[in-house]
Amino acid sequence: MPYELYYWPGIQGRGEFVRLALEEAGADYVDVARGPGGMSAMTRLMEKAAHPPFAPPFLKDGETLIGQTAAILLYLGARHGLAPKDPEGGLWTHQIQLTLSDLVAEAHDTHHPIATSLYYEDQKQEARRRAEDFCRNRIPKFLGWCETILARNPAGDAHLVGGTVTYADLSLFQVVEGLSYAFPRAMKRALRDLPKVAALREAVAARPRIRAYLDSDRRIPFNEEGIFRHYPELDG
Amino acid sequence: MPYELYYWPGIQGRGEFVRLALEEAGADYVDVARGPGGMSAMTRLMEKAAHPPFAPPFLKDGETLIGQTAAILLYLGARHGLAPKDPEGGLWTHQIQLTLSDLVAEAHDTHHPIATSLYYEDQKQEARRRAEDFCRNRIPKFLGWCETILARNPAGDAHLVGGTVTYADLSLFQVVEGLSYAFPRAMKRALRDLPKVAALREAVAARPRIRAYLDSDRRIPFNEEGIFRHYPELDG
Repeated sequence: MPYELYYWPGIQGRGEFVRLALEEAGADYVDVARGPGGMSAMTRLMEKAAHPPFAPPFLKDGETLIGQTAAILLYLGARHGLAPKDPEGGLWTHQIQLTLSDLVAEAHDTHHPIATSLYYEDQKQEARRRAEDFCRNRIPKFLGWCETILARNPAGDAHLVGGTVTYADLSLFQVVEGLSYAFPRAMKRALRDLPKVAALREAVAARPRIRAYLDSDRRIPFNEEGIFRHYPELDG
Repeated sequence: MPYELYYWPGIQGRGEFVRLALEEAGADYVDVARGPGGMSAMTRLMEKAAHPPFAPPFLKDGETLIGQTAAILLYLGARHGLAPKDPEGGLWTHQIQLTLSDLVAEAHDTHHPIATSLYYEDQKQEARRRAEDFCRNRIPKFLGWCETILARNPAGDAHLVGGTVTYADLSLFQVVEGLSYAFPRAMKRALRDLPKVAALREAVAARPRIRAYLDSDRRIPFNEEGIFRHYPELDG
């Protein structure tokens, strides 16, 4: 039975971290909310499930329903060899993912610093202040931490954890892609000091299954409804 | 060998979720940064460790170093019976924790909507707007989800997961305590519609080890340096 992924159709958003793991694993899955009747199926699960997810994305594997991006990846990583099998390595991979999730939340808040329930236009002033700090302080801090981890990996600097690809690598790729879309000027500057992060991004993009996915219409283009939005006035 | 907990001295912050789990477990631990030389030990680990934590809190168990609150609780929960042993129950408990972590991050941003690097006084206007939305929309949404989970727990509404206490229960207690300190008016209103959440809070506070902890000087009082801050102008 294929996995069922539930996420807002039309954006990459947090669902994209799950899609990348499923694609790299070559797993059979249905992106439910992008198909007919999918949105109401998604709403129904959120309202009626015994373990209701707080928000999309969530993954259904038979009777198992899992919400929260990092928890989904913890589950998929163990099943598809996208995380080390030893508990300590698995937990370290998860810890990196949780830190990338924090960065994603901060990236979202650059265009919605006041309220998700308001339009960008209603918080544009505040967004400009928040994005300035984000580009100047937060991007270098988070991605600098990733650069350090790559440098300290005893198995080499091609991966965040061990000597093979993990979901943490895929997620770092996605974060760099998203930030580069949203903040091209700030990211061009930041990546100059992050050669290992930049190399990992290229290496992930060149993986056969990821390349095929990125070239397919399963990959939704970045847009201004998602988490990573390109508003030139925010690119500091 | 006792666990070593590393967190900023002087605030409850995210470290408190770990402290509550350690206290309920009756585990032997040292709150390192509150002791002599503790701050420099904390900085040293962040700078030098093979698996450097991005930020406190982090936990050292022998040679194992774990950052990210939710990852620490995943680790402790399995070791101390503070989460179900079956993988699905363990993942569900973790998912609840991750959602509470999201709420904690949003609570922090009510007083720092623009930048952690700036003082509250430099973002007071924006804080007022963000806190208004937080009190009106986000608190009811997050805690309403917890109320639903309690209602749907097949083992009864005394716990979020199963029939015994988990770290998710302890964390929900802490979130309700913190929000009630920061936003007493908004929370008084919100809790009227959340009888199960309110009862869980009382039940956790009455657990012998938690009660002893709360009455001890190991429990740092809430204050305006932490995540949950009481600024009357933000209490909507």
